[in-house]
Amino acid sequence: MSALFERAAKFFSELQEELCRAFADLDGAGEFTMDAWQRPGGGGGVARVLEGGALFEKAGVNWSNVDGELPNDVAEHMPGQGRAFKACGVSLVLHPRSPFVPTTHANLRCLAKGDAVWFGGGADLTPYYFFRDDAVHFHQTLAGACDRHRPVADYDRFKAWCDEYFFLPHRGETRGIGGVFFDYLGSKGEHPMEKVFDFVRDLGRAIAPAYLPIAQRRHTEPYGDTERTWQLRRRGRYVEFNLIFDRGTLFGLKTNGRIESILMSLPPLVRWDYDVMAQPGSPEAELLTHLRPTDWLARAK
Amino acid sequence: MSALFERAAKFFSELQEELCRAFADLDGAGEFTMDAWQRPGGGGGVARVLEGGALFEKAGVNWSNVDGELPNDVAEHMPGQGRAFKACGVSLVLHPRSPFVPTTHANLRCLAKGDAVWFGGGADLTPYYFFRDDAVHFHQTLAGACDRHRPVADYDRFKAWCDEYFFLPHRGETRGIGGVFFDYLGSKGEHPMEKVFDFVRDLGRAIAPAYLPIAQRRHTEPYGDTERTWQLRRRGRYVEFNLIFDRGTLFGLKTNGRIESILMSLPPLVRWDYDVMAQPGSPEAELLTHLRPTDWLARAK
Repeated sequence: MSALFERAAKFFSELQEELCRAFADLDGAGEFTMDAWQRPGGGGGVARVLEGGALFEKAGVNWSNVDGELPNDVAEHMPGQGRAFKACGVSLVLHPRSPFVPTTHANLRCLAKGDAVWFGGGADLTPYYFFRDDAVHFHQTLAGACDRHRPVADYDRFKAWCDEYFFLPHRGETRGIGGVFFDYLGSKGEHPMEKVFDFVRDLGRAIAPAYLPIAQRRHTEPYGDTERTWQLRRRGRYVEFNLIFDRGTLFGLKTNGRIESILMSLPPLVRWDYDVMAQPGSPEAELLTHLRPTDWLARAK
Repeated sequence: MSALFERAAKFFSELQEELCRAFADLDGAGEFTMDAWQRPGGGGGVARVLEGGALFEKAGVNWSNVDGELPNDVAEHMPGQGRAFKACGVSLVLHPRSPFVPTTHANLRCLAKGDAVWFGGGADLTPYYFFRDDAVHFHQTLAGACDRHRPVADYDRFKAWCDEYFFLPHRGETRGIGGVFFDYLGSKGEHPMEKVFDFVRDLGRAIAPAYLPIAQRRHTEPYGDTERTWQLRRRGRYVEFNLIFDRGTLFGLKTNGRIESILMSLPPLVRWDYDVMAQPGSPEAELLTHLRPTDWLARAK
């Protein structure tokens, strides 16, 4: 199993490189810096960040491969014996400049603990303005990757898991229009691990195709102060989710992760104004009507 | 005891009015809006917010008086029997426009649960640039209120409690330069409740004198992009504390509090840039050296 973990770590590192190249090409002006770090508790990673680009205000693609001992309260909620763990993965968050280009997040990871090994991750989209085509394209691309790997991957199940996970109870909203999310895949020997890894690779290679066409067709649309202010306020919801609810963020903080890599996900500029309501009938109000679990693909089940 | 609770609620409401008047006078341009709300679970409050003022970018002074049933996991960590509770209080957060004027937060509250009644609260200062005079004046004013009410109040103990509470472990920093913080005061019958209430009133009346002279002497100093950017980044730390660690915020979210009142504390505009360091020897770096427990008054103990 250790061999599989090492292959996953290598794949995630290659995927980081591929994604950075794709997003830097898309941006056309900014470049990803490269920041290698060591974790005092074991292992390390490479943080790659593009700030102040033409299309991206802030984009981060992180790779890490760490090992150590989990705190008891974390270890007891995970498969596998003991507290020793290894975790490798790639994680990205893209914050575009234009309010018409959605924020996206994706993460793929492999964990090993005791004799258990599993994969987890997903990808989701957080638009500031709603375009049905974008939501459908994003979900269709991810569904394609899942469909090629049945029964290891199940789009309907992973899509529902994403809606459930990226939910802000205090706001009564999903974070965005969803995507797919899964965890503990392969941990119970329910699928051959090679097939799980095949799916994870395919999903990793679907991230850029799921996002690039959306960014390409939206980033040249002109916008004004109204749209920018709305974007900054909605980014506040992104911060609320990540700091109050996101398990990855809290896991990182509890395991003495590298703070700057963990909080790379936070938007570059954010507003919180008191008790702002979207105007009824406005495009801003329309977005809100879509922040709930929605069957984007209307496929026969 | 119920009579004391009602008197406390009335006092907090009067204090809200006094504080709004003092801060609106200080601002000179902005006015506090008034927003009365009902809590579906019981009780309600009055939110007062000043946005876009001359001195304050965002200032909120909230009053509330709510009752209901606590969730089990909250109730079991509090004095008094059962899950039924009443809570009243006043809470303020001031976010000035100028990076040379510190942010301040204060809260005073009375809780009743079963046959237990207690007071809690405090006040603390979060500067973006360090001025020793400001830190000393703030602490001296709060220490004065505590000293007048010995042994109910103990500045040294409440000051240490504040340093411990307003700490960001993932950053290794205190939120600001501290103040005083206390909780469960009177809950064990360790002091006559009238004397506890006397102290709380005196501390409430010390909030404006602790802050106003600092704001008055700093707000006209000119500043540029460097200082403004630094302020927006430091406000990010404020958000991190409030959303990850602040018990009041998490208590509000868990008890279905009014979201817009709870999150009124968040700054109007915030930046998160990747892995920014203050330049050695700069005023920004100097601030960081003071974000640890410090004996500001150097009094004989």
